[in-house]
Amino acid sequence: MLHTHQMLQTHPSPQPQALDDVGACIGALHDCAQACTSCADACLGESDIQMLARCIRLNHDCADLCTATASVLSRPSMAAPEIWASQLQACLIACRACAEECERHAPRHEHCRVCAEACRKCEQACSDVLSTIRQ
Amino acid sequence: MLHTHQMLQTHPSPQPQALDDVGACIGALHDCAQACTSCADACLGESDIQMLARCIRLNHDCADLCTATASVLSRPSMAAPEIWASQLQACLIACRACAEECERHAPRHEHCRVCAEACRKCEQACSDVLSTIRQ
Amino acid sequence: MLHTHQMLQTHPSPQPQALDDVGACIGALHDCAQACTSCADACLGESDIQMLARCIRLNHDCADLCTATASVLSRPSMAAPEIWASQLQACLIACRACAEECERHAPRHEHCRVCAEACRKCEQACSDVLSTIRQ
Amino acid sequence: MLHTHQMLQTHPSPQPQALDDVGACIGALHDCAQACTSCADACLGESDIQMLARCIRLNHDCADLCTATASVLSRPSMAAPEIWASQLQACLIACRACAEECERHAPRHEHCRVCAEACRKCEQACSDVLSTIRQ
Repeated sequence: MLHTHQMLQTHPSPQPQALDDVGACIGALHDCAQACTSCADACLGESDIQMLARCIRLNHDCADLCTATASVLSRPSMAAPEIWASQLQACLIACRACAEECERHAPRHEHCRVCAEACRKCEQACSDVLSTIRQ
Repeated sequence: MLHTHQMLQTHPSPQPQALDDVGACIGALHDCAQACTSCADACLGESDIQMLARCIRLNHDCADLCTATASVLSRPSMAAPEIWASQLQACLIACRACAEECERHAPRHEHCRVCAEACRKCEQACSDVLSTIRQ
Repeated sequence: MLHTHQMLQTHPSPQPQALDDVGACIGALHDCAQACTSCADACLGESDIQMLARCIRLNHDCADLCTATASVLSRPSMAAPEIWASQLQACLIACRACAEECERHAPRHEHCRVCAEACRKCEQACSDVLSTIRQ
Repeated sequence: MLHTHQMLQTHPSPQPQALDDVGACIGALHDCAQACTSCADACLGESDIQMLARCIRLNHDCADLCTATASVLSRPSMAAPEIWASQLQACLIACRACAEECERHAPRHEHCRVCAEACRKCEQACSDVLSTIRQ
């Protein structure tokens, strides 16, 4: 249904070996950016906002980095591999920090539980592409 | 697999009637942003770039607006309905302009054909949410 | 000190009549995006967060639209004037909504007062470019 | 004229020692994002586009990362110092790669010369904040 895989395949200079990982990672990055943006908005509707301030802040950092990383990975010509590597590393760190914070609130807030899941999946997807491009 | 629907459902103040449309629209916006970013990168690898300059420019306008619109729609508290309406309108216009240009190049470039499809789907999804919130 | 004006002037197809307005608007858009992002983060550190929830949400909507609009205006070839017009309109509406909310909190929070100022300036700058391109 | 410094100063938990560096860096990041977006659009109007394909691609990578980094730095509560450090590092690498490519085209294209200047200034500003937060 999504066009990501077709877009990567019809590129004049695709990188066949990494194609599946990159496509999956772009999907996970968008999913995580969405979850984080919604989680921040949901937190603002809870009665214990004060407790959730750090969660909201990390949600926004994570969403910003996921969105930027998705754009970079959507240019499969990969003009500078060192940009991919360092940006994936930064994004992975943001996903992990946000996941850890969301997990602390997961018992009380279902949106934090779901968001942590999206962050962990994205952390793993970034790590997978990093492994592929470092080979 | 994506967490969008769960994120919208676990929000403390969801808007049940629009939930499915909004979730589908966010997915279409991310898909379109990805397709446009990849299409621009793909166009730069073709031998007839000169012919594709306007396509690349509209790809970027469309990707920027889809990304921003996806963020706004990911805050389902909808703090200001007038922002949703005007931004969906602007995004729909960008999707249409980009689709029209991509369709002109579709016979020669498969990535333009796929991208046009993603743009048309997103134009429709924006139009659907617009109809819902105007009710 | 900023390079915006030089970048617009050295473009192979600049639009001389609108150059100063567009340059000033891009500056105002970045300034407003920055102010809104900082204001949201500052609000999360206040003891009356609950009262500031709508302010934080509009801060984020406004920041997202200002950033996207700045990108579109930074492509002075203006591939589709209808995209400029509708996006400037949407951005102006977000700036106004965010300014109105920030102004309500300005007596108690200095960051809301400063942010409202940045939003109003940006609303005006969007309006100026709109007038120019509609001529 | 810009409100960045006031926004950082009126934050309930500012970090006085880094305030000037962070404010200057946010300005340099927005300036660089703008220059890169305009440079890519300008390159598409030149007769030797083919030669400029890599420049356009790096322009977009650099603009995306500068925009995201500016957002993260605009949250001076600095929820996770490790996100600041890794993202500044990734952004610095993108600025350097884009500057190097733009410098190759500077003799022929004035917009590439100006853009390289903005990238180098931003690379330095990221490096300055990195030094400050590592102390």
